[in-house]
Amino acid sequence: MNPNGTKRSAGRPREAVLTRQKITDAAIKLLRTGSLKALTVSALAERLGVAPSAIYNHADSRATILSWVQESIAQQLDASGFGTEPWRAATERWAWSYYRLLREHPWFVEITATVPLRDAEVSARMYERVAYGLRAEGWRVRDVLHTISALESFIFGAAFDAAAPSDIYATGVHAQAAPILTAIVRAHDEVVANSELNTGEITFDLGLQAMLDGLHARHSHPKIANE
Amino acid sequence: MNPNGTKRSAGRPREAVLTRQKITDAAIKLLRTGSLKALTVSALAERLGVAPSAIYNHADSRATILSWVQESIAQQLDASGFGTEPWRAATERWAWSYYRLLREHPWFVEITATVPLRDAEVSARMYERVAYGLRAEGWRVRDVLHTISALESFIFGAAFDAAAPSDIYATGVHAQAAPILTAIVRAHDEVVANSELNTGEITFDLGLQAMLDGLHARHSHPKIANE
Repeated sequence: MNPNGTKRSAGRPREAVLTRQKITDAAIKLLRTGSLKALTVSALAERLGVAPSAIYNHADSRATILSWVQESIAQQLDASGFGTEPWRAATERWAWSYYRLLREHPWFVEITATVPLRDAEVSARMYERVAYGLRAEGWRVRDVLHTISALESFIFGAAFDAAAPSDIYATGVHAQAAPILTAIVRAHDEVVANSELNTGEITFDLGLQAMLDGLHARHSHPKIANE
Repeated sequence: MNPNGTKRSAGRPREAVLTRQKITDAAIKLLRTGSLKALTVSALAERLGVAPSAIYNHADSRATILSWVQESIAQQLDASGFGTEPWRAATERWAWSYYRLLREHPWFVEITATVPLRDAEVSARMYERVAYGLRAEGWRVRDVLHTISALESFIFGAAFDAAAPSDIYATGVHAQAAPILTAIVRAHDEVVANSELNTGEITFDLGLQAMLDGLHARHSHPKIANE
């Protein structure tokens, strides 16, 4: 059960076998290879070479371990612009860091949609900072949560979509049935070939800019902006 | 193996045992209960009470069956506004039909991101109609595919996000660490209570309108609109 395959000397172990960080890291490794269902306390115990009871000495439940994972990932999101930069620049920075993180850790989408903030203080503080940045620039209290949520929806979907094969829209033998689409796919391939961004990033950039333009107009419009 | 539990009389069966429609319907039922991996030819054969070879008499591969599913679902998307209504109204109608369909069939996101259009003529024709509608109103060839793709990203993410618990942002014991977020969540709950839409629909509406506003501005801007 010892993952290093070495014999442990008798008596007190040379280092603390378990820490929150070690459990979290092992959980992330499990989640990388499987889905949310793959993360069980017994699978974790096996990976760490300990008995399940040893894990329960540190975390009272699987839910707690999930919240540690959620926090460890949320910490990597760049919310530093909120409160220091204009909201649009701050949102752009945050959204790109979120998109890149999700492309690297696609399984994180499921965690984000599963772990309530009440169980994840670091994540709650991250959202607090986003909310503070928007409110400080006059966003209405009642608009902020839907705005964050709509942005996250787009980021989640874009990260998911980026995993699709790049030729998914190619019409192949149906080119005659879809001549406009076929020409469009060809033009699109040229755009991608001439860009430093890949196709997922180009789409993300377009959608994010469009959404921010729309949010900006909405936010600036006096009829809407007045509380 | 007969799914109806009745005895089949000897000789010629009273009805054709397999059709494309029956195989597609059975595949959709399998996908509803499991993931994409649950759809195998042998699982389908078992559900239909036939030998796998009987299925191969109709569909040459699992990929073909997936394309039938993709087409059967794509047919339910409302692209009827493209070419008959202004692009914005048409896009809104299409996006809402897509969102509602994905909320009912969340597994369809995976199919859409997996089955290439070259294998799914009905889907290719659906996208052709969308592309036609946008082109007819002067959208640049090179912009159309990324626009469709960005809209789909948002729709996918919103449908996914709608499955999250409605109190996911509630800060609970961390209310003091996140006072602005806590006030925002309370205001949000009031908005939802006073709306005919549920929280997922309100978010979808906000994000879609913002994105369409931004796309509209982009499309109307002469510097961008000229080919």
